[in-house]
Amino acid sequence: MGHLEELLPPMKWDAWGDPAAAKPLSDGIRSLLKQAVGLQGADRPALDPDEVRLRPSALAKADLDALAAIVGAEYCRTAHRDRLLHAGGKSTLDLLRRKDPGVQDAPDAVLLPADEDAIAAILRHCSERGIAVVPFGGGTSVVGGLDPARGEFGAVVSLDLRRLDRLIDLDEVSGQAVFGAGVTGPDAERLLGERGFSLGHFPQSFEYVTIGGSAATRSSGQDSAGYGRLNDMVRGLRVVTPAGTLDLGRAPESAAGPDLRQLVIGSEGVFGIITQVRLRVHRKPEAVRHEAWSFPDFATGTAALRAVTQNATGPTVIRLSDEVETGVNLATTEAIGETQITGGCLGITAFEGTEEHVESRHAETSALLRACGGTSLGEGPARAWERGRFAAPYLRDSLLSAGALCETLETATDWSNVPALKAAVTQALTDALAASGTPALVMCHISHVYESGASLYFTVVAGQRGDAIEQWRAAKKAATDAIVATGGTITHHHAVGADHRPWMTDEVGELGVRVLRAVKATLDPAGILNPGKLIP
Amino acid sequence: MGHLEELLPPMKWDAWGDPAAAKPLSDGIRSLLKQAVGLQGADRPALDPDEVRLRPSALAKADLDALAAIVGAEYCRTAHRDRLLHAGGKSTLDLLRRKDPGVQDAPDAVLLPADEDAIAAILRHCSERGIAVVPFGGGTSVVGGLDPARGEFGAVVSLDLRRLDRLIDLDEVSGQAVFGAGVTGPDAERLLGERGFSLGHFPQSFEYVTIGGSAATRSSGQDSAGYGRLNDMVRGLRVVTPAGTLDLGRAPESAAGPDLRQLVIGSEGVFGIITQVRLRVHRKPEAVRHEAWSFPDFATGTAALRAVTQNATGPTVIRLSDEVETGVNLATTEAIGETQITGGCLGITAFEGTEEHVESRHAETSALLRACGGTSLGEGPARAWERGRFAAPYLRDSLLSAGALCETLETATDWSNVPALKAAVTQALTDALAASGTPALVMCHISHVYESGASLYFTVVAGQRGDAIEQWRAAKKAATDAIVATGGTITHHHAVGADHRPWMTDEVGELGVRVLRAVKATLDPAGILNPGKLIP
Repeated sequence: MGHLEELLPPMKWDAWGDPAAAKPLSDGIRSLLKQAVGLQGADRPALDPDEVRLRPSALAKADLDALAAIVGAEYCRTAHRDRLLHAGGKSTLDLLRRKDPGVQDAPDAVLLPADEDAIAAILRHCSERGIAVVPFGGGTSVVGGLDPARGEFGAVVSLDLRRLDRLIDLDEVSGQAVFGAGVTGPDAERLLGERGFSLGHFPQSFEYVTIGGSAATRSSGQDSAGYGRLNDMVRGLRVVTPAGTLDLGRAPESAAGPDLRQLVIGSEGVFGIITQVRLRVHRKPEAVRHEAWSFPDFATGTAALRAVTQNATGPTVIRLSDEVETGVNLATTEAIGETQITGGCLGITAFEGTEEHVESRHAETSALLRACGGTSLGEGPARAWERGRFAAPYLRDSLLSAGALCETLETATDWSNVPALKAAVTQALTDALAASGTPALVMCHISHVYESGASLYFTVVAGQRGDAIEQWRAAKKAATDAIVATGGTITHHHAVGADHRPWMTDEVGELGVRVLRAVKATLDPAGILNPGKLIP
Repeated sequence: MGHLEELLPPMKWDAWGDPAAAKPLSDGIRSLLKQAVGLQGADRPALDPDEVRLRPSALAKADLDALAAIVGAEYCRTAHRDRLLHAGGKSTLDLLRRKDPGVQDAPDAVLLPADEDAIAAILRHCSERGIAVVPFGGGTSVVGGLDPARGEFGAVVSLDLRRLDRLIDLDEVSGQAVFGAGVTGPDAERLLGERGFSLGHFPQSFEYVTIGGSAATRSSGQDSAGYGRLNDMVRGLRVVTPAGTLDLGRAPESAAGPDLRQLVIGSEGVFGIITQVRLRVHRKPEAVRHEAWSFPDFATGTAALRAVTQNATGPTVIRLSDEVETGVNLATTEAIGETQITGGCLGITAFEGTEEHVESRHAETSALLRACGGTSLGEGPARAWERGRFAAPYLRDSLLSAGALCETLETATDWSNVPALKAAVTQALTDALAASGTPALVMCHISHVYESGASLYFTVVAGQRGDAIEQWRAAKKAATDAIVATGGTITHHHAVGADHRPWMTDEVGELGVRVLRAVKATLDPAGILNPGKLIP
């Protein structure tokens, strides 16, 4: 095995993903940026990976030998490129950090265990010797969940789960599949697709994300209206912890005490290593239907989405971009900055299932959207959204290189609180970035709906000013403070990691934090698992 | 205030519920019992409540005074009738115990706090003084969840939450209501109904069950196909614990770490006292449609329910009785033992929503049920099921008095495992009861469906032989052992209590039990809350 890329789709060490899928800025976007945030000038050159100065590996030779003995020498790696590829996730802060010509941090070694026994042995060794362990799935964290933090320890290893890459079982009758934690989104769909099934978990990070990472971060995909969040899909999971193995989920639902699956989902590697996930899957839909909509304004569109959700009319996908996002065509990344698809607010719907199912859901949904003030735009813009739905992070790479600041953040709240929360976050971002000396383009969409509320997903583009890392930190802090003050959750589907951790006490209260600490002390008594993440 | 009955619908101390709703055995049922389990002879006389010998209250005068000072003298009660009404739940074991002419156990006092402050003060006092606390909602536990167990302590109080009886907030836009924990099922529907809303939580215990008790026991109602289990409905909750108050749920969904709501739901009072529950609610349906079905056998009917669920055709209610249950008309309690409604297996469907919604869901579901081998029986039997759906426990009272043994138990599993689990439990019950010297009528239905599996609900009728308590314990042990061996969950919606506790380690593993103990030690360091329940 050479570099680790061979086991995964190509991903850049200092940018989102496959270099072949890079999205250079079009003239339309450059013109938009100039107009909106005053951006001009040439792109900044990228850093040559071989020239990055990495903090030297702090792992003692004896530990390295012991860990290599557990996983096999070729799966215990300290090469520059391997460490670089595990240096962190893909937040804007991560990517800005990787442009630093000074010393950068990285895990002291990368371990690729083959199975649960090896994972258990690694956790034993690291607990005994005081070595921090950062679990690594697809590497797509945008909340600092992969920071190589050592906590109180002298060394940290990245535990890369990509070798747990099998579809272990498929129960076609029950519609359930058991995956190794390292199976990626595309591989899950391919392995299931060969048998006529689909999972339907399509986060924007789909191309890289792993099943285990999705469970660990309580992820939610773009088809959540139809197929649910990942936590809804989980039928069971196995978790190797320093204190032993949890094997949870004896039935689809149970009243046998608290649902401990929901304690592991979202635990971000601080309790243990998720090794297998049993997920509900469905037969590939026989029919798919798309329809885009235009609403005169965000309030009207929001009320329409609420009506659809509370009446359970049954779309698989339903989304709504606000006026700004619609105005720059961000929803359908193919035509950003070019001719507007529509005025007002763009809505996207899709329906999947049997022909009859799709037909009746589409009819009921469309009638309601129309009654709520929507105008059909046909299927074109909805299909364009679907084609481009994993592309936005590639665009961010180009924006960052061009000297723009670009990041996303998200929250969720009750329907009645959507207007106040949207206004507060928009204001906080605009004010904080203005204070740093740049105008900001703040866009928003609803991408996940629930009977009682919805997510709000913000995209921010501004000009980089001074220390762009500190600049964004200040804006993000202002936005999160506004979220907390206005009653939203600090994260709807990006998880907590290091970046949201300062607000975790606001989210669950001090006693909630004490409960999390008690669970951690039981499962990870040495405290080696992902220090500095999730739990304050 | 006289006896506590005044605050709640009438409930008998030694039987299910309202004496006015008692269901004397019809000639049809008596003839059926004689034929099926050899039952004959006269009914046994009931025990006069005033003649029951209760264990004397063990609470010290100083404690009683202190607790009375917290809740007010009239809400700190040690009267014979008050203690008797809190002596336990309503399982067959509970009801058999209450026929005991010897000394019966009961809480040493009954406390009725008015608010969270009083609850916190009670928990402080009881933690300091070592007094066990058993939370009491509707009193309908069928798993020993209300046993007045003292654990390591000398005294136990029943904490009756009926005074937390308000609809605290209704957010009509978000479709959310905040209820005090003591609000009963009928009161929740009445309070919401006045505003045009409904909760849709209809467990068989609906007439008595409280919102707090439903959350504490991870309950699921008969409309779960449409409105979800109670754990699906919970948007947030407040829990007063000896260590402080948890206020959980800032948004409909979140990725901010584990979902701690799901750690409290199903905690059966061992972590804290649920005081408020924020639940999603829906507008009262504009249309309701019922249809009953006949299937040639249980396997065909099960496959049909599976197809409906996996294709999300959208019924609000869907159930299937097996051949035995169908044969005695148990599903529609009005006509038990009389002319058969149908041969084969009876299925029940109901649809709620807008006219268009009901129409399309009914059409899609009916077409699929027909394609899967079902024959429509029209709406009659489905409406009869609905009329009688809370009546079965009343019938049990009469059966127990007549010398029959009658009880229910339930589990859930994946669709692929339904046949094996049903056969194993039926065999275990039949064999165990045969060993005690009686034939047994073992009936089963599916009442809750999920994409990947379903619940199985068993009703058993046999003759009482020897010590009926020990006789049922042996049968129940055999059934639960069979459930565990065949891969079901030890309870789908009845909770763990004292009765399922011996199997909790089988359910969640030893490490899972250690996690529960760690959470308990954090929230209830003195261990006063509901000792002997849930956690082994």
